[in-house]
Amino acid sequence: MVNMYVDGEWRTDAYEMNDDDGEFDRDSTSFRDALGGEFPAEAGRYHLYVSRACPWAHGAAMVRSLMGLEDAITMDIVDPYRDERGWQFTPEEDDCTVDSVNGFDYLGEAYVEADPDYTGRVTVPVLWDTETDTIVNNESIEIMETLATEMREVGNGADLYPADIREEVDAVVDAIYDPINNGVYRAGFAGTQEAYETAVTELFDALGHWDDVLADQRYLAADGERLTLADLRMFATLVRFDQVYHTHFKCNRRLISQYDNLWPYVRDVYTTPGIAETVNMAHIKEHYYTTHTDINPTAFVAAGPDLDFEADHDRDELPGGPPAELVAGAASAD
Amino acid sequence: MVNMYVDGEWRTDAYEMNDDDGEFDRDSTSFRDALGGEFPAEAGRYHLYVSRACPWAHGAAMVRSLMGLEDAITMDIVDPYRDERGWQFTPEEDDCTVDSVNGFDYLGEAYVEADPDYTGRVTVPVLWDTETDTIVNNESIEIMETLATEMREVGNGADLYPADIREEVDAVVDAIYDPINNGVYRAGFAGTQEAYETAVTELFDALGHWDDVLADQRYLAADGERLTLADLRMFATLVRFDQVYHTHFKCNRRLISQYDNLWPYVRDVYTTPGIAETVNMAHIKEHYYTTHTDINPTAFVAAGPDLDFEADHDRDELPGGPPAELVAGAASAD
Repeated sequence: MVNMYVDGEWRTDAYEMNDDDGEFDRDSTSFRDALGGEFPAEAGRYHLYVSRACPWAHGAAMVRSLMGLEDAITMDIVDPYRDERGWQFTPEEDDCTVDSVNGFDYLGEAYVEADPDYTGRVTVPVLWDTETDTIVNNESIEIMETLATEMREVGNGADLYPADIREEVDAVVDAIYDPINNGVYRAGFAGTQEAYETAVTELFDALGHWDDVLADQRYLAADGERLTLADLRMFATLVRFDQVYHTHFKCNRRLISQYDNLWPYVRDVYTTPGIAETVNMAHIKEHYYTTHTDINPTAFVAAGPDLDFEADHDRDELPGGPPAELVAGAASAD
Repeated sequence: MVNMYVDGEWRTDAYEMNDDDGEFDRDSTSFRDALGGEFPAEAGRYHLYVSRACPWAHGAAMVRSLMGLEDAITMDIVDPYRDERGWQFTPEEDDCTVDSVNGFDYLGEAYVEADPDYTGRVTVPVLWDTETDTIVNNESIEIMETLATEMREVGNGADLYPADIREEVDAVVDAIYDPINNGVYRAGFAGTQEAYETAVTELFDALGHWDDVLADQRYLAADGERLTLADLRMFATLVRFDQVYHTHFKCNRRLISQYDNLWPYVRDVYTTPGIAETVNMAHIKEHYYTTHTDINPTAFVAAGPDLDFEADHDRDELPGGPPAELVAGAASAD
């Protein structure tokens, strides 16, 4: 069951997400503009709508945090539970907010505000332009890229998408999307046993590959000396894995905390200044277990393992490190 | 949804298994006779109906195997998938058999044969008397005890329930039933989040306790030097844990393979002569994931971790060991 706008009307009837082979098909996003040009990069003009539960939104929230854009780009946080009307603003819930820009109750209203004839799903993240009252972009990786390239001068200057290795970053982002970031969904929302098994096999093959890569380098892209958007994409999936994907999406060949390098890597990224405050594990767990009642009819939230994301990791013995702006910022904040 | 006989009629309508507090309530079993007296201990007279999937039936099958009773007590194996008519004989399926005693298609027919007015669920194991065409006992632990005490002279003589430590064995069997053996079901079939969390907490508290106990002794009961029924009870749950209970029943605080002592202990019991051939992981996985569609609506079978139950365990450095009859038997079979 998926809820979406069809010909500008909100529809809550069933909508088949799987293709003829039972494989999960993620709908493409609709608003695909970049900052610059029609949407000049300015502090105080743009707004992010995110869910703390959603890994795609998490990527955008991490870019905002790492680049020191909290004052330049406002942000609202939806309720982790997505009901039949979609993402909702419930300020009475812990770490949830009102819609501070438009005052809407449901995020779907922002989509219709941006386009009265909007057809499609209502997803996060949304990059909203308060000047023209429209959605600039609702595609996670494009929001991450446009913030990383266009808003550096507005924030602390941290460079998460360095021009000299952009192709390498893109290559990693592309390489991990299908088997890992979307792979957990392909496993969890598979329509057949075969589609599930294909997804799980590709997922763990890819995790094994990147675990090997991370044996010799601190981060994913190029020579691995710089934290980039590719790491934020990977982290958004890995930080959710043992608590949610392993059980809820049946990605249970192995825990991330059982990998020699992926697990210290997750702790390394987690303890990078600016990341921990973007992780709300309560939102993550509540969202998945309570929203997908088609695969978890009881809606009970699994207890999950106790994970210490702040345990020592020794990854700083490898060359490189997070952007200097972050480390300096953390020091000055102390 | 539970299917059962009510007033001698097979009923497939919903039946609430949870009490008012949402806690899983297991129905008690109905046939509770022992061997001896009315049912004299004889080779060739009794029959076991088991499922390779079910941990309760597994206990009885392990006793039969360890005591060398394969020739003295015949055994049939039901299909791992339990449909709305209950356990079924599907000899065309791998490691499944006909009903070689009664020729029934469904195990429920044996219950009605034993008692035309039978009321209750149809469960395995069943100890069947071919002389009087009735069920001697369908309570797992009682079948294990009566075989262990009454049939020793018929088999290889192995003593799994030694008279001098019987109270200690009983104490362990009792202690692990509620939090562990039945605890995984209490978690998986809980009717409320609270009942689930209570079950999970008690389960992992108990696993932690027995992991500590097994640090200093090879087996569970008394001084830990002898393999007893208590170990077979514990093993039947632990061998299923990482592949099924961890994901399907959301017992996901920790894997058994992450415990320092429980995991080598599982491998020690698994590699005891006579045990491995009673473990059919394909049946175990198929049963749980495909039968409980109320908690796993897709009925897809989770991939699960690769576990090497035959890896070295070093438990033989602790005092004691399996019954001498088993080790001798294994040696002569080589």
